Amino acid sequence: MGHFSPIKTIHSHCHHLGWDNRIDPVVRVEPGSTIELQCLDASNGHFRPDSTAGAVDTLPPDKTNPVTGPIYVAGAEPGDILAITLDSFRPSGFGWTAIIPGFGLLADQFPAAALHLWTYDQHARHPAAFGSFARIPLRPFAGTLGVAPVEPGTHSVIPPRRIGGNLDTRDLCAGSTLYLPVEVTGALFSMGDTHAAQGDGEVCGTAIESAMDATLKLDLIKQTPLAMPRFSTPGPVTRHLDASGYEVFTGVGSDLLQAARDAVSGAIDWMCREQQMPAEQAYMLCSVCADLRISEIVDMPNVVVSFYLPRVVFE
Amino acid sequence: MGHFSPIKTIHSHCHHLGWDNRIDPVVRVEPGSTIELQCLDASNGHFRPDSTAGAVDTLPPDKTNPVTGPIYVAGAEPGDILAITLDSFRPSGFGWTAIIPGFGLLADQFPAAALHLWTYDQHARHPAAFGSFARIPLRPFAGTLGVAPVEPGTHSVIPPRRIGGNLDTRDLCAGSTLYLPVEVTGALFSMGDTHAAQGDGEVCGTAIESAMDATLKLDLIKQTPLAMPRFSTPGPVTRHLDASGYEVFTGVGSDLLQAARDAVSGAIDWMCREQQMPAEQAYMLCSVCADLRISEIVDMPNVVVSFYLPRVVFE
Repeated sequence: MGHFSPIKTIHSHCHHLGWDNRIDPVVRVEPGSTIELQCLDASNGHFRPDSTAGAVDTLPPDKTNPVTGPIYVAGAEPGDILAITLDSFRPSGFGWTAIIPGFGLLADQFPAAALHLWTYDQHARHPAAFGSFARIPLRPFAGTLGVAPVEPGTHSVIPPRRIGGNLDTRDLCAGSTLYLPVEVTGALFSMGDTHAAQGDGEVCGTAIESAMDATLKLDLIKQTPLAMPRFSTPGPVTRHLDASGYEVFTGVGSDLLQAARDAVSGAIDWMCREQQMPAEQAYMLCSVCADLRISEIVDMPNVVVSFYLPRVVFE
Repeated sequence: MGHFSPIKTIHSHCHHLGWDNRIDPVVRVEPGSTIELQCLDASNGHFRPDSTAGAVDTLPPDKTNPVTGPIYVAGAEPGDILAITLDSFRPSGFGWTAIIPGFGLLADQFPAAALHLWTYDQHARHPAAFGSFARIPLRPFAGTLGVAPVEPGTHSVIPPRRIGGNLDTRDLCAGSTLYLPVEVTGALFSMGDTHAAQGDGEVCGTAIESAMDATLKLDLIKQTPLAMPRFSTPGPVTRHLDASGYEVFTGVGSDLLQAARDAVSGAIDWMCREQQMPAEQAYMLCSVCADLRISEIVDMPNVVVSFYLPRVVFE
């Protein structure tokens, strides 16, 4: 039997920006500990209920994507695996989605800033209204979960890495267990960038970005190889979205990135035409609920990337 | 009310190899017609119940991936959309999966031919046994559905194209409607390469390849723009697989193709270690049931590709 420490709470003022193994841990825990983390939203509180699209242009780039931590896990050594079991998320009920100029899969097609603010059910039991256009089933998760890299220096929090970080993988929600390779003594785990909902790909660059508190358990698996992050889900991952099927748009061509761009463009064109949506709204809606899949990757020289838009959001 | 013609049956000897708008149609139908197509397997009958891996090396490349057709749809003109509603599939009950040297996402790591033969429930109601290693829920679909390209000449059937073709997209199963852009008068629709099951990506290059008969309806949508194939599903697409959740393996890096390769390698390593499977068997199992998804595509310079292996296959 393992020993479970009482819950410790790490407050959101204990956050950092970027990955750096020199950052002092805010707490030291034993393997098997259950911890509550208070996570800021990715704008670090910049967006407020009265913000307008103009606020996107004043988003301070050096303050974005704060993560709460780091947490020192006693006994963690390079070559171990840190297992993070996500127990629950308590979202704030306020969120934002933005088109940030220069950022996103179709940045060339969407040069202007846009902002949508969300007010949603704090228990995430009811879909969140996207104006009169759609209703988005919620499934809170953490966009950024990582440990400190062995490589010296400060490393941007934006790109995902071998040590995790900004994975923005929408199935890292309650019930899932994420496995990360430990690179430094104590692991130095941090988490943030919580999202109330996101589609696979996060195509416009933002999800339903939202502060929330999360409870999780940290365990160690000693000296086991792990080249890349992996995770387990305890059950289905799309049933909150799939009941009415999907409208699916493909990109077919020799380049995966361009095929993904073509698939998303097809979805936006269809929403503009069939759902009478402005293109910017369609792009943001895609980002919070539609999924990029690689349907075909072996019939060279071409691949098929498909973008699955759940029909339930329009019902 | 539309007029539905009586069912016409197109026999499998009416097949062709490659796309060419000069191929004479085998039948002319009105829009709204329901048709039965008898489809050969992608090996054109090369693999038999007594075949061994040696037969992979004698697979005649100029005979593979035959498609039944072409079907001339009266009134179809360039700029129209051909809507193909897939009604039902009647699989043969015999199938094959192979590692073909030089073909597949990890061709560099799997240089030797391998072959697995399947005998499965013809009604696809029960999972198919993969030796003692796994049981694969079945969901028959057509790998190749296409219309003739306007570009003159014969075009290989292997790569998927704007006009469809070898899309190998596993949700093109009963109930789905595929929309293809018509490029020539009469559309000239053909179909083949039927599969009893496949994961998104078809990573080893082959699915549960299997001859089957299919019933479908052909409709026209006149003069509507369609840059790339798209499709609609009438309901959920993963419920045959998702009940027990997934083991998920990621690839994180700057290149989508390499990230996909890393994710699949992670799954194979895990199956070898945790399920005591030979690597070749693990690779083929991945191809028939696990799904490649793009979890993250905007946090430059890195992306996250995830490979979802359904746990139910091991139960």
